[in-house]
Amino acid sequence: MFIAKVKGTVVTTHKVETMAGKKLLVVEPLQVDDPSGQFRPTGRCLVAVDNIDAGVDEIVLVTQGSSARMTESTGNAPVDCVVIGIIDSVCVQGKAVYSKG
Amino acid sequence: MFIAKVKGTVVTTHKVETMAGKKLLVVEPLQVDDPSGQFRPTGRCLVAVDNIDAGVDEIVLVTQGSSARMTESTGNAPVDCVVIGIIDSVCVQGKAVYSKG
Amino acid sequence: MFIAKVKGTVVTTHKVETMAGKKLLVVEPLQVDDPSGQFRPTGRCLVAVDNIDAGVDEIVLVTQGSSARMTESTGNAPVDCVVIGIIDSVCVQGKAVYSKG
Amino acid sequence: MFIAKVKGTVVTTHKVETMAGKKLLVVEPLQVDDPSGQFRPTGRCLVAVDNIDAGVDEIVLVTQGSSARMTESTGNAPVDCVVIGIIDSVCVQGKAVYSKG
Amino acid sequence: MFIAKVKGTVVTTHKVETMAGKKLLVVEPLQVDDPSGQFRPTGRCLVAVDNIDAGVDEIVLVTQGSSARMTESTGNAPVDCVVIGIIDSVCVQGKAVYSKG
Repeated sequence: MFIAKVKGTVVTTHKVETMAGKKLLVVEPLQVDDPSGQFRPTGRCLVAVDNIDAGVDEIVLVTQGSSARMTESTGNAPVDCVVIGIIDSVCVQGKAVYSKG
Repeated sequence: MFIAKVKGTVVTTHKVETMAGKKLLVVEPLQVDDPSGQFRPTGRCLVAVDNIDAGVDEIVLVTQGSSARMTESTGNAPVDCVVIGIIDSVCVQGKAVYSKG
Repeated sequence: MFIAKVKGTVVTTHKVETMAGKKLLVVEPLQVDDPSGQFRPTGRCLVAVDNIDAGVDEIVLVTQGSSARMTESTGNAPVDCVVIGIIDSVCVQGKAVYSKG
Repeated sequence: MFIAKVKGTVVTTHKVETMAGKKLLVVEPLQVDDPSGQFRPTGRCLVAVDNIDAGVDEIVLVTQGSSARMTESTGNAPVDCVVIGIIDSVCVQGKAVYSKG
Repeated sequence: MFIAKVKGTVVTTHKVETMAGKKLLVVEPLQVDDPSGQFRPTGRCLVAVDNIDAGVDEIVLVTQGSSARMTESTGNAPVDCVVIGIIDSVCVQGKAVYSKG
């Protein structure tokens, strides 16, 4: 899994039937920058199915590959990326890198 | 999943039988460029099975890996990349990055 | 899937039993270079099982991951890369990038 | 699999149900640096489920992809990265690169 | 699959039960360097389960992902990388890049 920031949303009307009703988010993977003790943006983006009603700017946990189909809403759909949790805190080498709210 | 632009088509006559009748597209993954609020081409290309009759220059949603087999047309075929939707709009940080037509 | 050029062959005598009799090819992924309208070599190489009797210098279609096991000859073997077709032509933005023979 | 250093922990309260009770670690993949005979940090981070009660700064073995679900605790969960062992020693070209404790 | 050189070994005592008895190798993926007609080291390393009793400095064939579980010894284990053969020879563009012994 990786840590990501929710950047926005994607809308598709004409799509494979099993994708109907799924909320799609643009997520940017984040790296942990040791010296500064902060997240470092990667400039890359992926599209993930939202399983937990995440909002823009929230820090989330994302799963890729076949494991992205191991949630109730993604079961047999052609989904390879899914948000599985909203992150409360990240602690690296004993220091808080991130703490929500 | 990732956002991609349809660049062209691939034709193969001599192929594995289960690939018969599948339309193959050249797709280029796109990144979202924050400052300019536009898509950024990556210069890379992949070949994806078309599930939704997408045309050249259309912006589409692409799934990779085993999840690419989770569509009616790709079922048990040796397919690791599939177009699953035509994108209508992408919104990042509250601003429209892309809007179709 | 990706477009690749067949570069050569690999021979292994001492191997896992289920790999017996499989022809192994060295393949180099190619990118499509927009301005020149030609393939661009990547300098990387992978080893793929040959399913269609491809020869050196031929341009082929390659599938990776678990989907590489979805062919008659690769069924339950530890194969993660397979050649599934010989490419006749690639057309990008309406222009022929490649045409066989 | 790859060699990684445990850097910290991730806490998520609001998450997919099947992730309840799983301990999440921030892990950094390490490379083996031939000339110096030491590990080389990569600056990247992933989030892995902990299966073996690993502590911060420990050197561990990490599995990715669908294989990350092949442990008792990750069975049908949307997990694509898991710690499967604490590394005692790594030996490269006959020299000890790492030896625990 | 990819061509790799066996660089060393990894020992883990405290690990997931299904990993017991598996020999772990550090392997470095190699690229084929066209102009010189030789292998080019990549400086990256992975940990693979050894299925064929490979020794340090041997050139081997490695499979990744779920396909790494398609061997007798890796069946249901959390293994995503496995050595499936010792390479005898690699021939690129009609020239021998490598020949064992």
